[in-house]
Amino acid sequence: MADYSAINRVISDIARNEERNLAILKELVSQPTVSAQGIGIREGANLVAKVLKDAGIQAEIYETAGNPVIFGQRSASPDKPTLLFYGHYDVQPPEPMELWLSDPFKPEVREGRIWGRGVADNKGQFLAHVLAVRAYVESRTELPVNVKFLLEGEEECSSPFLATFVQENLPLLKADIAVTSDGPMHPSGRPTMALGVRGIMTAQLRAKGAKKDYHSGNYGGVVPNPAWKLIHLLAGLKDETGHISLPGFYDEVVPPTEKDRELLRALPFDREALLGEMGIEEFDGDPNIPYFEKIMFRPTFNICGFKSGYAGQGSKTIIPSEAIVKFDTRLVVNQDPEKILAAFKEYIAKKDPNIEVSFLGSMKPSKTPSDSPAIPIAMEALKKAYDEEPLLLPTFGGSLPDYVFTKIMKIPSLIIPYANADENNHAPNENLALDLYYKGIKASAHIIWGLQGLK
Amino acid sequence: MADYSAINRVISDIARNEERNLAILKELVSQPTVSAQGIGIREGANLVAKVLKDAGIQAEIYETAGNPVIFGQRSASPDKPTLLFYGHYDVQPPEPMELWLSDPFKPEVREGRIWGRGVADNKGQFLAHVLAVRAYVESRTELPVNVKFLLEGEEECSSPFLATFVQENLPLLKADIAVTSDGPMHPSGRPTMALGVRGIMTAQLRAKGAKKDYHSGNYGGVVPNPAWKLIHLLAGLKDETGHISLPGFYDEVVPPTEKDRELLRALPFDREALLGEMGIEEFDGDPNIPYFEKIMFRPTFNICGFKSGYAGQGSKTIIPSEAIVKFDTRLVVNQDPEKILAAFKEYIAKKDPNIEVSFLGSMKPSKTPSDSPAIPIAMEALKKAYDEEPLLLPTFGGSLPDYVFTKIMKIPSLIIPYANADENNHAPNENLALDLYYKGIKASAHIIWGLQGLK
Repeated sequence: MADYSAINRVISDIARNEERNLAILKELVSQPTVSAQGIGIREGANLVAKVLKDAGIQAEIYETAGNPVIFGQRSASPDKPTLLFYGHYDVQPPEPMELWLSDPFKPEVREGRIWGRGVADNKGQFLAHVLAVRAYVESRTELPVNVKFLLEGEEECSSPFLATFVQENLPLLKADIAVTSDGPMHPSGRPTMALGVRGIMTAQLRAKGAKKDYHSGNYGGVVPNPAWKLIHLLAGLKDETGHISLPGFYDEVVPPTEKDRELLRALPFDREALLGEMGIEEFDGDPNIPYFEKIMFRPTFNICGFKSGYAGQGSKTIIPSEAIVKFDTRLVVNQDPEKILAAFKEYIAKKDPNIEVSFLGSMKPSKTPSDSPAIPIAMEALKKAYDEEPLLLPTFGGSLPDYVFTKIMKIPSLIIPYANADENNHAPNENLALDLYYKGIKASAHIIWGLQGLK
Repeated sequence: MADYSAINRVISDIARNEERNLAILKELVSQPTVSAQGIGIREGANLVAKVLKDAGIQAEIYETAGNPVIFGQRSASPDKPTLLFYGHYDVQPPEPMELWLSDPFKPEVREGRIWGRGVADNKGQFLAHVLAVRAYVESRTELPVNVKFLLEGEEECSSPFLATFVQENLPLLKADIAVTSDGPMHPSGRPTMALGVRGIMTAQLRAKGAKKDYHSGNYGGVVPNPAWKLIHLLAGLKDETGHISLPGFYDEVVPPTEKDRELLRALPFDREALLGEMGIEEFDGDPNIPYFEKIMFRPTFNICGFKSGYAGQGSKTIIPSEAIVKFDTRLVVNQDPEKILAAFKEYIAKKDPNIEVSFLGSMKPSKTPSDSPAIPIAMEALKKAYDEEPLLLPTFGGSLPDYVFTKIMKIPSLIIPYANADENNHAPNENLALDLYYKGIKASAHIIWGLQGLK
C-alpha cells in the first residue's frame, strides 16, 4: 500500500503539470539543433542541461571530438539498481521547408498534437524521462532507482563519437539497464517495446563529368554525363526486384528465430489501412516476406537523395558536371557497417574509380536477449501507464546507437517509443500527440518504479 | 569601287561605335528574360523593340499564345533580295547562382569578355545583326537588301508557338534566306557556318512513392522508393555503352552523306586540347564514332536534372516521396520529336504506368541543301569579316527552330554563330569575347552586303 500511494503521488504530480511540461518541450524545440548542418548545437546542449537541473538532476556537459554530451544523474542509494536513460538533443534538417504547415522551430499546438522539428525525434521523448524524475522530486517521493542520463548531440549523424565517449567513461555510466525512448509506437497505437535496432551505414556517391556544365546540344554525345554514371552504377547494385546485388551483402544476415517469428506473428497488422495511409498500392520488395520481417530482419539499400543538374521549373538543357547520391543501408544482426562500407568501396572502385565514395556515418545493429528479467517488468509498467497490453517487437526498424549498451557496456537495453506512428520523424510536419507525450511521462515514472525490482 | 567604299563606310562606322554598342548589349542583358521561369519577358520584349527602333528598324510586338514576338523590318527595294534574321531574347535560367563569379544580370567586362546570362545566347548575337543595320543607316549607306527580323521569346523553352506564328504570318515574313547567329563558333576560333541543326525533345519523368517522406529506418523495406523506380527505368532506356534502348529510337536516323563526311573531315580537331579543357579523360560514347559525327549526326538521350530527397549537407535518412528527372534528347534528320515522345510514353506506360511523363518542348531537326547559292556568298562575307577561312559544318549540335525556315517557309537557312566556343551558354559564367562581338557586327554587315548578289 505504501508503494502504491507513492507512485500515485508521482502520477498525480505529472497530471497536474501538463501545461508546464508542454511549455518545456516548446522551449526545447524552439532551439534548432541540426547536427547535419551544425546549427544551434551549443545553445541546445546548454538548454538541455538547464532542463535537467530544473528537474533536480545533476547535469554536466562533456566535450567529445564532436558535439557535446550531457550527462545527468540523480542518485538514490548504492544498493538500488541503476537505470541509464539515453536520448539525443539533435534533430534532422527541416528541409523541404515549403512542405511544413507551420515553422519547424516555432512549435505549434493543433489537432491535439505539437508540431515542430524534434518534438518527437527526440526532444519530447527523452524529456518524458526527465520530467518523470522531476515528478518524483517535486512530489517528494524517494527515487526507487538511481537514474543516469546520457543525452548526445549527433544521433542524426549516426553518433560518430558516442562509442568512444562510452568506452572512455564506463565507470561514470555504469548501469544495470539502459532505456531509450525514440521512434514511433506501433501503428495500432498500443504501447511498444523493442529489444534491439537495425544498424545503419550512410554514404554519399559523387560522380564527376566535365569540369563545368556543358550545353547539351553543342556537346551532347561527347561530354560524359555523371548522372548516367550513377544510374548505371546503382542499377548494378540493386535489381528491380529489390535484391541488393552488392557481393557479400547478405552473408551475415541472421534469419529470425522461432521466438522472433512468434513475436512477429503477434503484431497486429492492417494491410489495407497501412497502404491507404501511405497512399501506395503495394509494399516494396518481395511480397513473400511479411511486412514486419522486412522492417526488422531484412537489410535495405535506400536512396535518400539524388541531385544532378537542374530539376526546377521549365528546363535547362545542360550536361551536368556532377551528380550526387546519398544513401543509407539498414543492417541487421550480424552485419557489420564497416564490412559493408568496404564492400561498396571495392565494388565501386572496380566499376568506376572516378566515383567518389564518402562515408557519412554508421551504427551497428543491436539485440537484447529475450530472457532479460527487465523485459516483464517494463512490459508491466507500460501496461499500467497505458492501460493496454503492450507489444513486444523483436527489434526496431530504425537505428539507434543501442550497441553502445549491448556491445560495449554489455547491459540489456530496452527501446520504448512514446511517439505516434505518424510522427513524421525525419520528414516535414514532425509531430507528437499530446496525450502520448503526457502518457510517456507517466510511463517513465512507472518504468522507474518497476525497475526497483531488478536487483 | 563604289561598292567597296560603301561597305568600308559601314565597317568604319561599326569600328567607331564599339563603346556604344557594348552599352546597348549591357542594357539588354541587365533585363532578365528567363522564359522557363516567366521572368521579365514583357519588359524584355519592349526593350528589344526599342533597340530595333533606335537602329532605324520598324519594329512591332506581336502577341502569340506564349511570349511575344518582335517583328522588325527595314525595306530597301522590292527588287532586292530579302534577308530574314532570326534570334531570341529569352535566356536560360541562371541557376546554380553560387557558381557565377559576377551577377548574371549585372553584365561585367573582364578579361576581354562580357559576362552575364544571355550575353551570347542570344542577345549579343542577334544584336550584332541589328547593329549592322544601324551602321548602314548611320553611315547613310543604302541597304543592299531588304532586312527583316524575327525575334522570339521562347527559344529556351523549345519555341512552342513559333511554328504557328510563322505559319500564320507567311506574307509578312516572306524572305529569300534566313540567317541565325546563335551557339558557339568552332573551338579553333575560326568563323563557322552550319547548314542545319539537331532537333530536340525535352520531357520530365516524375515517379511517386508514398504520399510523404518516410523514415528510412522505421519503414525501410516496405515503403517504395521513387528514385529507385526512375533509376531502373532509365537504366533500361540507355545502356552503359551509351546505346539508347528505347524501341525504334534510331529507326529514322540518316547517316552522313559522302559530302557530309568530307565536311566533317575538314574540321580541325585537337583531341588533347578538348579533353584538357573539359577536364575529362575520354569523350562519351562509342570511341569508333568521330567527335563531330557524334555531335552532328548522332542523337542523344541526356539527363539534364535529377532530383529526389535530400542531397544537401550531412544526411537526411528518408525514403523520398517523389523523384524527378528532366531529360533532353537531341534528334537528327529524319527523327521526329513527336514520334520519339510517343515511343517514350508507350515504353514507360508499359513499364510503370505510375510514372508521369510531362512533355516540356521540342524542335524538329533541319537541313539546308549544300548547293544553296547563298552558301559561297556567306562564306566569302565571313572570310572578309574575320580575315580567316571559315569552316562549314554540315549541321550544328545545338537546337534552334530552324525548321520553321527550311520546312515551313521552305527557304535556305544559314546558321552563323558569333560566340566563342567557351561561351558557357546554358551554364554559369556565360560570356562573349568582346572582339568576337564586334567582329560579329562586321560579319553581319558583310553578309548583308554579300547577299545582294542572291537575286
